[in-house]
Amino acid sequence: MKIAISGKGGVGKTLLASLLSKTFAEAGYSVIAIDADPDANLASTLGFPEADKITPISQMKELIAERTGTQPGQADIFFKLNPKVDDFPEKYSAKHDGIRLMVMGRVKKGGTGCYCSENTLLQALLAHLLLARNEVVILDMEAGIEHLGRGTAQAVDKLIVVVEPGRQSLETAHRISKLAQDIGLLSIAAVGNKIRSKSDREFLISSMPGFEFLGFIPYDQAIIDADLANLPPGDSSQQVITEVRNIYQALLSTTKTPNPTK
Amino acid sequence: MKIAISGKGGVGKTLLASLLSKTFAEAGYSVIAIDADPDANLASTLGFPEADKITPISQMKELIAERTGTQPGQADIFFKLNPKVDDFPEKYSAKHDGIRLMVMGRVKKGGTGCYCSENTLLQALLAHLLLARNEVVILDMEAGIEHLGRGTAQAVDKLIVVVEPGRQSLETAHRISKLAQDIGLLSIAAVGNKIRSKSDREFLISSMPGFEFLGFIPYDQAIIDADLANLPPGDSSQQVITEVRNIYQALLSTTKTPNPTK
Repeated sequence: MKIAISGKGGVGKTLLASLLSKTFAEAGYSVIAIDADPDANLASTLGFPEADKITPISQMKELIAERTGTQPGQADIFFKLNPKVDDFPEKYSAKHDGIRLMVMGRVKKGGTGCYCSENTLLQALLAHLLLARNEVVILDMEAGIEHLGRGTAQAVDKLIVVVEPGRQSLETAHRISKLAQDIGLLSIAAVGNKIRSKSDREFLISSMPGFEFLGFIPYDQAIIDADLANLPPGDSSQQVITEVRNIYQALLSTTKTPNPTK
Repeated sequence: MKIAISGKGGVGKTLLASLLSKTFAEAGYSVIAIDADPDANLASTLGFPEADKITPISQMKELIAERTGTQPGQADIFFKLNPKVDDFPEKYSAKHDGIRLMVMGRVKKGGTGCYCSENTLLQALLAHLLLARNEVVILDMEAGIEHLGRGTAQAVDKLIVVVEPGRQSLETAHRISKLAQDIGLLSIAAVGNKIRSKSDREFLISSMPGFEFLGFIPYDQAIIDADLANLPPGDSSQQVITEVRNIYQALLSTTKTPNPTK
């Protein structure tokens, strides 16, 4: 099962990615969680010890140079489009509580070199993870799906767009949905987060006609309090955990799934 | 005065950018507001009519081709590094309530061309706006400042990092601060948003030692309600407007400012 999670910044993508990863791992699946959002910290949300010491792939200059055939720091007009990446998940990941985590990192933009080689390496790695691995892969993305090419997108079993009661998050959801259709990613579903009332839920449903909703995660002040106390927020709210388990069940029943591998 | 606003997704960058733009415009300044965050909609937050009909610069394929010397849709290995952009603010902006708005748009990543020409055009445009214009420029950025090069960054009078009571927004703030120092942007300040209590405020101050705080915007449910009712959220809360006026005064007193131009 390959799951990509997107949505506007701040809606709770990382929280959902971390809790889904834990739920799959507890059910006996091998899980690779991918932090592909430079504006998030999946490692700390998952409770990884020394989360800030994990080096993102995009910062491994020598590795990028070796695999793409470029020179570090030089403009990279010529570079390999299919760099070798199949050893990355074992070599360049951290593991905790049965979850293997990879951090993609931020690719700097602009300049004359345009950092094509870093981007190419990350895209090749994503393609490998989505197309050639048997694990459950859970991808915490930014507010867009540009890292998915046409070929890779079709390997995604479900693109989950997280929304909250707020127009900006709906606009982003509709934009992501359109981008997804453009690259042939047709299996999209939504998850509502920070739901305070029945009317919040109805607002989201009526604003997103045609969207399948996998679930609605309640707003819980305990999540914010845990975060401020530097505790993994996902462990702090039983009602949130329960709803993520329902979302997990909804995923299993609406997508094809590999057998659990341990 | 050139102000750049950054911070984690969802903290309220766009709200602050829109209210600061309005405050400067009401005081008689010529204001250019720049939406440089693909995950935001400054136009609708500013209450621009037909906000969704403004074409982002990054989507003007023929314009990009003309100014950078590339062919639309082709790999752009050779292109002009200093495309002409000085006519853009007049030609490619919308105007409403005395505020001129430009939307940069989303530059797609990846692929063999790496969209270097689009990035170069947007960077040249930002450089022009920051270095060669007399207006007050307010830049609503994403959770990073990669669009600012070393030369342009030094033209920013103040980089405002918006934070909310939450560890992720603090992590992002520290990361942005480090990136800013790397490119010589030393005039950084913070604004706290979604402040519910004195302890929220104290949490932010104690978590960001050495940061100058320009102000603390209170949490107000009226902002969310206005947003859900499709009204410009910034008009709905007098206490938020009042605090943004204080921030405006703090900006005037801590940065060099041009005389108001009308």
